[in-house]
Amino acid sequence: MSPARIEEHHSRGWIVPVGGAEEKEQDPVILRRFVEVSGGAGARIAVIPTASRLPDTGARYEKIFRQLGAHSARALPFETRADAEREDWLGILEHATGVFFTGGNQLQLSTILGGTPVAKSIRKLNARGVTVGGTSAGAAILSEHMIAFGQGGATPKAGLASLAPGFGLTNRVVIDQHFRQRDRLGRLLSVLAFNPFAVGIGLDEDTAAFLGPDDVMHVDGAGAITLVDVANLEHSSMAFAKPGQPICLTGIKLHILTKGARYNFVTREAVLPLPPPDDDD
Amino acid sequence: MSPARIEEHHSRGWIVPVGGAEEKEQDPVILRRFVEVSGGAGARIAVIPTASRLPDTGARYEKIFRQLGAHSARALPFETRADAEREDWLGILEHATGVFFTGGNQLQLSTILGGTPVAKSIRKLNARGVTVGGTSAGAAILSEHMIAFGQGGATPKAGLASLAPGFGLTNRVVIDQHFRQRDRLGRLLSVLAFNPFAVGIGLDEDTAAFLGPDDVMHVDGAGAITLVDVANLEHSSMAFAKPGQPICLTGIKLHILTKGARYNFVTREAVLPLPPPDDDD
Repeated sequence: MSPARIEEHHSRGWIVPVGGAEEKEQDPVILRRFVEVSGGAGARIAVIPTASRLPDTGARYEKIFRQLGAHSARALPFETRADAEREDWLGILEHATGVFFTGGNQLQLSTILGGTPVAKSIRKLNARGVTVGGTSAGAAILSEHMIAFGQGGATPKAGLASLAPGFGLTNRVVIDQHFRQRDRLGRLLSVLAFNPFAVGIGLDEDTAAFLGPDDVMHVDGAGAITLVDVANLEHSSMAFAKPGQPICLTGIKLHILTKGARYNFVTREAVLPLPPPDDDD
Repeated sequence: MSPARIEEHHSRGWIVPVGGAEEKEQDPVILRRFVEVSGGAGARIAVIPTASRLPDTGARYEKIFRQLGAHSARALPFETRADAEREDWLGILEHATGVFFTGGNQLQLSTILGGTPVAKSIRKLNARGVTVGGTSAGAAILSEHMIAFGQGGATPKAGLASLAPGFGLTNRVVIDQHFRQRDRLGRLLSVLAFNPFAVGIGLDEDTAAFLGPDDVMHVDGAGAITLVDVANLEHSSMAFAKPGQPICLTGIKLHILTKGARYNFVTREAVLPLPPPDDDD
């Protein structure tokens, strides 16, 4: 699906993919900022742990978001497609100021929630200003086209990764996570090679993209975002590559963006972070 | 990509996927109707033969559309991503009342035209009333999520088919073609199992779906359309299926629709064709 139309007198909410394994104990920079863009002390956060098979994932994030100062945090553990029709949980979702998908398996999210009132509601919430984010599988699900599964390696090859429809909060990007940790440049390039209309963002662990209502992305966290811009791609051999064959791609533009950097999706320009202040000497 | 926003005082144009191998000589029912919904005697048809590797595909359709009474038909043989920036061809496209993609390889279309001014222009044309259709590969490319390639067989299995981003004229459907001829129910079910938000339409050869501006689909041609509605899917096991394993899916609704039948995508109801008149006895 594609993004819901923005209602009059509203602007789109933040979209916050996180690369997985974000710091939760010492100095949870990313999760704290998530609470801030969800309303700070007034934030009501709905946690959706559907991707995870661990029974305590929802409760763990409830606790963290409350400790970080959210007004409330409530896990909605949708486990079946029938759960996705529950009026009580849909009511809680409807009043959230932030929605957070935990990690796990992104196909759990799409198979259980795809096409249900939950997925529709989240698109509408974001279109009227509510922040929606997620980590790992919860990051992958946010875009229109998501990587369902694939293999590691730096060289793009035919068949290296499979796409599936995500929840479609944005169609500007295809997201990949655990990016350097699992050597995923090849699989991100492989899926962009199908149809070079989207920008690829590869998120390292403990790293987040805060996509603002103005289509500017702010980078935060300990790692980097590898941004792959194929707007000026000259050639892709994907159409005739056999499974496992490397793909010929020319004209790729790459940015490696770290904390404080921004990227404007309208102008397709990166804005660098300010240099650190001079040492006092 | 997703459909362009419809401009004020306009309605969306027809979207016409054809299942391949449509009749071209004796009684070309489908291509004749394509000319009609493109403006009849005033139709200016742009033929895009990019999916095909045969040099005469464009010229062949030019001739057919002129014989069927179109005012003009002009092939625009984009072969490279640089071609997709040619001002002269973009100018012809901009004044078309109908755009037709020939068959071939749908990844040729997405890799050469994806993200270029051609793909953007076609989405905008359709949003202001211009008819856009195509046959075989040219049908697959029309939707937001397209089947890039896959294997035949009736049972849905993990890994049976791969998705890629199409041109996104509609996000209501995933299209498959040569449907009964190549036994493709399994692969269509496999891709719907990822995220059950779209309706699957499997087009037999010489069979077309005329998707109207009012979201009603009209069936025409010699074969049938297999319509797969997963709105009430109860369960999909895709999240944990291993490659080659069959997928468990419950609650699928199926319609087999033939010439004269209609399907309303808003109400999700089929309207049957009128019965043939009684024999005179």
